[in-house]
Amino acid sequence: MQPIPYKMYLSETELPRAWLNLRAFMRKKPAPLLDPATLRPITQEALAKVFCDELARQELDDTSPYIPIPTEIRDFYKMYRPAPLVRAYCLEKKLGTPAHIYYKFEGNNTSGSHKLNSAIAQAYYAKKQGLKGVTTETGAGQWGTALSMACAYFGLDCKVFMVKCSYEQKPFRREVMRTYGASVTPSPSTTTNVGRRILEEFPSTSGSLGCAISEAVEAASTREGYRYALGSVLNQVLLHQSVIGLETKTALDKYGVSPDVIIGCAGGGSNLGGLIAPFMADMLQGKSQHRFIAVEPASCPTLTRGTYAYDYCDTGKVCPLAKMYTLGSGFIPAASHAGGLRYHGMTSTLSELYKQGLMEARSVKQTEVFKAAEYFARIEGILPAPESAHAICAAIDEALRCKERGEQKTILFGLTGTGYFDMMSYEKFHDGKMQDYIPTEEELSKGFAGIPKL
Amino acid sequence: MQPIPYKMYLSETELPRAWLNLRAFMRKKPAPLLDPATLRPITQEALAKVFCDELARQELDDTSPYIPIPTEIRDFYKMYRPAPLVRAYCLEKKLGTPAHIYYKFEGNNTSGSHKLNSAIAQAYYAKKQGLKGVTTETGAGQWGTALSMACAYFGLDCKVFMVKCSYEQKPFRREVMRTYGASVTPSPSTTTNVGRRILEEFPSTSGSLGCAISEAVEAASTREGYRYALGSVLNQVLLHQSVIGLETKTALDKYGVSPDVIIGCAGGGSNLGGLIAPFMADMLQGKSQHRFIAVEPASCPTLTRGTYAYDYCDTGKVCPLAKMYTLGSGFIPAASHAGGLRYHGMTSTLSELYKQGLMEARSVKQTEVFKAAEYFARIEGILPAPESAHAICAAIDEALRCKERGEQKTILFGLTGTGYFDMMSYEKFHDGKMQDYIPTEEELSKGFAGIPKL
Repeated sequence: MQPIPYKMYLSETELPRAWLNLRAFMRKKPAPLLDPATLRPITQEALAKVFCDELARQELDDTSPYIPIPTEIRDFYKMYRPAPLVRAYCLEKKLGTPAHIYYKFEGNNTSGSHKLNSAIAQAYYAKKQGLKGVTTETGAGQWGTALSMACAYFGLDCKVFMVKCSYEQKPFRREVMRTYGASVTPSPSTTTNVGRRILEEFPSTSGSLGCAISEAVEAASTREGYRYALGSVLNQVLLHQSVIGLETKTALDKYGVSPDVIIGCAGGGSNLGGLIAPFMADMLQGKSQHRFIAVEPASCPTLTRGTYAYDYCDTGKVCPLAKMYTLGSGFIPAASHAGGLRYHGMTSTLSELYKQGLMEARSVKQTEVFKAAEYFARIEGILPAPESAHAICAAIDEALRCKERGEQKTILFGLTGTGYFDMMSYEKFHDGKMQDYIPTEEELSKGFAGIPKL
Repeated sequence: MQPIPYKMYLSETELPRAWLNLRAFMRKKPAPLLDPATLRPITQEALAKVFCDELARQELDDTSPYIPIPTEIRDFYKMYRPAPLVRAYCLEKKLGTPAHIYYKFEGNNTSGSHKLNSAIAQAYYAKKQGLKGVTTETGAGQWGTALSMACAYFGLDCKVFMVKCSYEQKPFRREVMRTYGASVTPSPSTTTNVGRRILEEFPSTSGSLGCAISEAVEAASTREGYRYALGSVLNQVLLHQSVIGLETKTALDKYGVSPDVIIGCAGGGSNLGGLIAPFMADMLQGKSQHRFIAVEPASCPTLTRGTYAYDYCDTGKVCPLAKMYTLGSGFIPAASHAGGLRYHGMTSTLSELYKQGLMEARSVKQTEVFKAAEYFARIEGILPAPESAHAICAAIDEALRCKERGEQKTILFGLTGTGYFDMMSYEKFHDGKMQDYIPTEEELSKGFAGIPKL
């Protein structure tokens, strides 16, 4: 066996030719999405009013184990993939752990995260259907950037509703999207009915993701030739993100390495779902054994303190309902600096796996996360996104546990992106102005009270 | 011959084991550096008061064709190198050119540019000499970031003097440096004699690179166990940056490709000097034939409108004099958004090659540069640094000339970095508020008047 390099890059011919549909490997499938109008399992026809036809089909397909990746998407993937799988030699040495640590780094592209993997797929199917454009919302801005890039590539119009406080606090993210030709509107806006209604009621609101989703869905449904695109939570997004795990597995297999522990941060669940897909599929088939750990912020503890129930995916209640771990669609997480993890629910596939005891979950506090982020940056060179640093935090904990016990385990984690547009949060951390927030039982109860009784 | 992939990654075992010292291949060498105190060729002993011993030696060595890269530096290189060599298939298609376009992308690391290649070498030699730390200046911030990262890796202290206007306008760059443990001081500051003197005379000054250099040199020379580090212009920097060209050549050789035209942006000349090194060395030995093009901003036209003379490298006149193309050390370039190219001189090696007619030069206007940058971002996905976009601009021109003439030439250019911290400039461009500036003959005359008569 040849020595393991610092970075493993697959060749372009080794890029996956099909996405892996994890649901197809699950004996007990995630519960079906419900139509918000009828509260019955949603039909492909109803879904196709919101999403592109092919994406509506993928959303409901829980039996095809693999779905081929179209050549046009693979060609785009070649511009920034395969992503490197890194052996964290420097981190191992610094920690003095016998554990072997690997991370799959998804930040080497201008969107700065894994979001591009699904954005290009969603843009492709929109283009193929002959649409003019897509609408979406963005909070932290990574998804909006990714979709802007994908739309620029296929010559599609892209309308992004950006949560107003982010729009104002992150002008540089907005400019990246403008560079790719997207129109970016602060939400709530006067361009939609729902936006106007909210502005009338709360004139000084700084917006929320739930509101931006509702505006984006309305903007798509009232325009000829537009559909809505979403960057996480959906089954289709997990499917596209399986490219992360598939590449990782191919690279590890070459060196005969099988991870004992697989760790990822979890907001809506897209990156974690993608990373674990082929490993979980193998385990479900009895081919291998792994521990899977979802890491979420203590300020938004969906898996660790949420309840498993059918709930709305958005605050405006216009999207389908999903059975998932949820804090209630009315739960407003405290202003966390990991904006990408401030989501009240968890994609139904991961929720079901967690319910079945096939995946663990833990929550970490914000200041611990930034401490781990800075530690990692100084040792491994990469300045991580706050979201990704949740996974770093847990990986370091696991590696130190191996040190205590003298175990040479193999730890794999997902490094979803870079923190170049999050320096305001790092500044707060450096200046000792960052606070931790853990919701009280009472606050959680209020959120739970809004979950529909079906 | 196998088909050429979108991205060529060398394996870690193919990483260069020695830097290439271009001066050793030149029949007529660049003129020696002069000691500012004596105006005679500077001795290694005198240089070693400012730089580390080994770097002082490298600075004066114009005969060793190759200098081995220490293992510790190669190990660090493995964390972010080999850098990808990209075949710009999408750009070629969009332009409809028969030309083949390649670019070497140096932006896949947290410093966001090629600067890290020399920063790690300079930090290594400082560590090896048993120093406590290094001082430096930074304008746009890429060099300061790179040196901070390198110092964090080797556990060295890093004191960065950041031009005051940048310090205030680019707080995020500052925070990246702080994340890596560097102390960042706005310049001019009250921590040095020269800083206090300047602040007394010009209390409201927003600083300049020349002043920051003087502060950094003073801070190093008045502290036990410190030396000064510089990110461009010097021979040692060109030497370290040869890793760019060496990797590029190894990758192209594998596919039997020899570039007809090699293009790079040029400020102090470090990236261009590094990219062309092995190709120019081959040409000087009659082994191959290439055109080399340096691209500079019209607002700071060192090669295209400067004069070839001995001049000071810094405004404070504390550094050695170099024979180079210069606009005069007192020339203050207009506020350009490509801060990394706002330098009055050009490294002596490139100056001598240009003088001998072995290299071409052209200047481009800022608005043309941002137009090319945006065009490139939408097609190739990478949002370039304004500096790097100078090279893109010229590469597109060359590719369009090939289209006109029906010539299938091979064009190679250096994509030195990403523009994630330059979005304020992109915003000005999007809003139509960006202006071009071309210095008048009278303005140039004033700069020339300050060049010493030796």
